[in-house]
Amino acid sequence: MTEPYAVEVPLRWSDMDAYGHVNNVQYLRLLEDARVVGLREWLPTGATMLEEGIVVSRHAIEYRAPLTYRPAPVRVDLWVTHVHGCGFDLGYVVRDPASVGESVYAVAETGLVLYDFDAGRPRRLAPTAREVLGAHVGDPVAFRWDRR
Amino acid sequence: MTEPYAVEVPLRWSDMDAYGHVNNVQYLRLLEDARVVGLREWLPTGATMLEEGIVVSRHAIEYRAPLTYRPAPVRVDLWVTHVHGCGFDLGYVVRDPASVGESVYAVAETGLVLYDFDAGRPRRLAPTAREVLGAHVGDPVAFRWDRR
Amino acid sequence: MTEPYAVEVPLRWSDMDAYGHVNNVQYLRLLEDARVVGLREWLPTGATMLEEGIVVSRHAIEYRAPLTYRPAPVRVDLWVTHVHGCGFDLGYVVRDPASVGESVYAVAETGLVLYDFDAGRPRRLAPTAREVLGAHVGDPVAFRWDRR
Amino acid sequence: MTEPYAVEVPLRWSDMDAYGHVNNVQYLRLLEDARVVGLREWLPTGATMLEEGIVVSRHAIEYRAPLTYRPAPVRVDLWVTHVHGCGFDLGYVVRDPASVGESVYAVAETGLVLYDFDAGRPRRLAPTAREVLGAHVGDPVAFRWDRR
Repeated sequence: MTEPYAVEVPLRWSDMDAYGHVNNVQYLRLLEDARVVGLREWLPTGATMLEEGIVVSRHAIEYRAPLTYRPAPVRVDLWVTHVHGCGFDLGYVVRDPASVGESVYAVAETGLVLYDFDAGRPRRLAPTAREVLGAHVGDPVAFRWDRR
Repeated sequence: MTEPYAVEVPLRWSDMDAYGHVNNVQYLRLLEDARVVGLREWLPTGATMLEEGIVVSRHAIEYRAPLTYRPAPVRVDLWVTHVHGCGFDLGYVVRDPASVGESVYAVAETGLVLYDFDAGRPRRLAPTAREVLGAHVGDPVAFRWDRR
Repeated sequence: MTEPYAVEVPLRWSDMDAYGHVNNVQYLRLLEDARVVGLREWLPTGATMLEEGIVVSRHAIEYRAPLTYRPAPVRVDLWVTHVHGCGFDLGYVVRDPASVGESVYAVAETGLVLYDFDAGRPRRLAPTAREVLGAHVGDPVAFRWDRR
Repeated sequence: MTEPYAVEVPLRWSDMDAYGHVNNVQYLRLLEDARVVGLREWLPTGATMLEEGIVVSRHAIEYRAPLTYRPAPVRVDLWVTHVHGCGFDLGYVVRDPASVGESVYAVAETGLVLYDFDAGRPRRLAPTAREVLGAHVGDPVAFRWDRR
């Protein structure tokens, strides 16, 4: 069980909506950026994996506290929650860099599938990628919401 | 148990990402638009409820098929999956208007909480809003993914 | 001299920024959508021209009145202001569909260049495209601002 | 005549469009971010000026070279091109931080007007703001395009 990987993600003024808070949809942009940065840094084949195609199969996100624009980036903790033959799941906590353990803005999880766009089908994780991802496996995401 | 409410949501060329598909995050923009339109039409107090503040507490979305930009709108089927004291959950199916029952691009669910920004706390659903929402209650969202 | 071509462009709730108005940058998204729709409808080869690549070389836009989100689309009047060997310029007026001649939200102009991405250079307008575009030529955009 | 003020602006993967380049409209988001950061740093009353309302009255932008996503930020050079009673104009050069003087992606100019939303009219620049802005005045933007 490893520590989550911390990525600092800058906000943009335009992430705010008419309520003056970072819009709920824009949180997923922040996760996208954390993911793109994280995967590039984790994987020697990261850039290639991204160029060859990774498809998002699902997202789940829970919002915990409102976030307003500020010049300082937020911190996204990123880890792997599951690895399977053709993909993997990522867990995230969006938090304030200055106060680890507090000020959690959101928790989320994304399902990712490697996809061969030319062949029109999923493709298998290479053993090296599987090994690297395995080294980042952590706890399940602590969602509060339970399926009814 | 009522039929879902169908909202036609236009795409924008910019919804596509570098892969040439409608970006996974932009699907949540389509849901946002369907929701804004649907709630205005359902609720006599719809506009007011929106202006006074509804907060998204969570999203879950599963992607089923890639969607590319075209001038014709997609159809978002919208219904209520749950009503509680201070909010409600909405279910969605994003599909092709021309082929109902096929071509499902995504299924999703959003948790919404009525929020009093001045007082900094959730506020209760008015009885009339509760009644209107109750008339739109339908099946749970048919997610394929099960929590591990 | 022909009449401008009118395209109805729907707004999205998310086009509003923290000030509660349609954000100035999002106006250019509205223009993009009007342009994509207009060019497809004008040109028999419209889709092909777009797929083969058109590059925006410049924009100029003047804002005249604040625009807030509403379910009804805005109307974008679209015409050609100039045609040259490898491209053309488009003029726009963003206005309220219900009150032609009043309620102008913005006027704008975009320079477009046909580009061959594989060869890495501009490509020439086909004679048929030139002819079609010529039929849409109208007045210069009535900018108020003069270069100092 | 002062040096332009350099702001590093991070890109997002989603800034790319279906052509795989940073989308022309997203450049204006980069300018917005540079402007928000620059004005906060220039003006002791920067945050207040922003909260009280600045309205964009116009933009002009010329694109010089295609920009693709990379983890490293771009550099936006920012300066004042004109100050008047109720507002000011900003000039920008979007460039690569690693190669000053080369790799210019775009040049642009924005007109800004201070606005009193409650009163529904422009408001005058305070003398201190005018003085600070005056210290950042530089050359006109070197647009290639001339009005025809």
